[in-house]
Amino acid sequence: MSQSAPAQPTETIRIPAQEMQQVFYKILLQQGFQDNKAARCAEIFTDNSVDGIYTHGINRFARFVEWIQRGWVKPENGPVRKGGSHALEQWDGQLGPGPLNALHATERAMELARSHGIGCVGLSNTNHWMRGGTYGWKAARGGFVFIGWTNTIANMPAWGAVDARLGNNPLVFAIPYGTEAIVMDMALSQYSYGALEQFKMKDQPLPVPGGYDAAGKLSSDPSAILDTRRILPAGYWKGAGLSLLLDLLAAILSAGSATHEITAREHEYAVSQVFIAMDLSFLQNRTFIQQTIEQIIQDYQSSIPEDPAGRITYPGERVLHTRENNLRQGVPVDKVVWDTVQKLS
Amino acid sequence: MSQSAPAQPTETIRIPAQEMQQVFYKILLQQGFQDNKAARCAEIFTDNSVDGIYTHGINRFARFVEWIQRGWVKPENGPVRKGGSHALEQWDGQLGPGPLNALHATERAMELARSHGIGCVGLSNTNHWMRGGTYGWKAARGGFVFIGWTNTIANMPAWGAVDARLGNNPLVFAIPYGTEAIVMDMALSQYSYGALEQFKMKDQPLPVPGGYDAAGKLSSDPSAILDTRRILPAGYWKGAGLSLLLDLLAAILSAGSATHEITAREHEYAVSQVFIAMDLSFLQNRTFIQQTIEQIIQDYQSSIPEDPAGRITYPGERVLHTRENNLRQGVPVDKVVWDTVQKLS
Repeated sequence: MSQSAPAQPTETIRIPAQEMQQVFYKILLQQGFQDNKAARCAEIFTDNSVDGIYTHGINRFARFVEWIQRGWVKPENGPVRKGGSHALEQWDGQLGPGPLNALHATERAMELARSHGIGCVGLSNTNHWMRGGTYGWKAARGGFVFIGWTNTIANMPAWGAVDARLGNNPLVFAIPYGTEAIVMDMALSQYSYGALEQFKMKDQPLPVPGGYDAAGKLSSDPSAILDTRRILPAGYWKGAGLSLLLDLLAAILSAGSATHEITAREHEYAVSQVFIAMDLSFLQNRTFIQQTIEQIIQDYQSSIPEDPAGRITYPGERVLHTRENNLRQGVPVDKVVWDTVQKLS
Repeated sequence: MSQSAPAQPTETIRIPAQEMQQVFYKILLQQGFQDNKAARCAEIFTDNSVDGIYTHGINRFARFVEWIQRGWVKPENGPVRKGGSHALEQWDGQLGPGPLNALHATERAMELARSHGIGCVGLSNTNHWMRGGTYGWKAARGGFVFIGWTNTIANMPAWGAVDARLGNNPLVFAIPYGTEAIVMDMALSQYSYGALEQFKMKDQPLPVPGGYDAAGKLSSDPSAILDTRRILPAGYWKGAGLSLLLDLLAAILSAGSATHEITAREHEYAVSQVFIAMDLSFLQNRTFIQQTIEQIIQDYQSSIPEDPAGRITYPGERVLHTRENNLRQGVPVDKVVWDTVQKLS
């Protein structure tokens, strides 16, 4: 959970997306962003909020500004090419704003894919990209397949270990779907700390086990897990192993910091990321591809739901409804959060 | 669990790897394989057994031969290029032997990476590749990063559903490590049916929940899960969502069959696979890369194990010990399995 979100939710208000974006934009200008960078960054924080990913949108914005003020995020810096060649490039993010660096790397991977069919950009020395899905949606709406991930500070134990040495290293897969996209955006822990805190606040057990209690037993009690900080990798040994591989690849492909190096800094900056894009226009025609996707989704959604009133949704489907709703009614924001953001300007 | 493995284990014997490979080779020649193809395929089945992946080595061999006899695997066929260009190609496996098709696609992805830095091959109309790790080890020992996956017949429900519409779609990430490799080879179900059957046979509960019982409750009882056939995706909604994306990508990148189409055939053949390779020589020098990996593994292995006598291993590490042991002592094989294989010649 973002440091800028209140411990207890207060009143929820609805802020029109345009107004939110304008507020973000003005603040970012004041923080030293160039005009076009302020506009793009404000758009990303707004879109994340509109799409319902509040933890990496409105609820995170004040903390983002705080990190600029601490000097960990440098608004004047952007990515520069430092290595690689052909369809495999390495860029140095120079501690610039994470969302802008990541967007640039996504667009560069798309450019490489336009020339080679597939392209890969390793990005070192960058900052939190906020919502990984942002880059999946961006590439997929442009007709590209996207695979990307970031490493993080250590926040999850290896399998069979009690201390955190692995990051939850969010991993994104995206594919075009009509004018929209199917986007899987998953951290490799079963729950984020933010999610555990929300269940604790509501005094609810987790729907499935999320970590270990002090006795070393699998637990669905968010408080017990928050006490041990021994959260569960998604799929136990599987998520743990995958996290290690993603960190190795991020560090090597970007020639950047690994999780253990980020962790040694105590604050999560100068992380490493990977962006892979594939240009589907090198393959079948768009109609054939869309038919293939339609048929797969149709079969998937003909699943028998456990809850007779339930509906089997594909990754990214709910985002469309939230987006439509939030664009119509305004983005739901905790009043204290909105007041805090407004005071930044 | 392979159909050719006995319901109850009998006596375990040790077969020298060379002898095993020779037996496989002769049988494959008799099944219509060309000499060099028989040799390569025998080597893969032997190596999988030597590495301790018996389910996709010795224990699977008789079934592989059965599928040739049924006409689902065509020994005389191999992959032909059918589409794509530059670093993104599509091949048709023509129902040839899965391990040979997959090895060819891996080598082709490596070739593409040698030219472009990164290369991707979509392979349609192929057969079970046996052990996904085979292709990760192959590429990584050659100095390449490898990412690959296969789709499968439906064997796992979508999240919130009760009927199987998703495959467990094994996913492989591999990276060079000295002269060896770090290889993560994971199916997207928490346990395979084979693993559930082994726990049932030993009358042991699963270490972590593996599916649902008839009452729709999470269960660690292998028998209860085998009854409902409602196995658990690794990471619950995460493994389920990732499985859907991998199937979408496999079908599109190869212009091949999706899980629902494979499932409609009732037997798992003509599957779709993806092979991505990256040539690390386009990036830093080998020494720098190996140092980066060493440091990450060193930090990872300095984790505090839950069991004070325990050791935190990286994906692929145990394979090295099993390999050394099996090369020295011979591959452990159930006597009934070995008799069955020998009768095939």
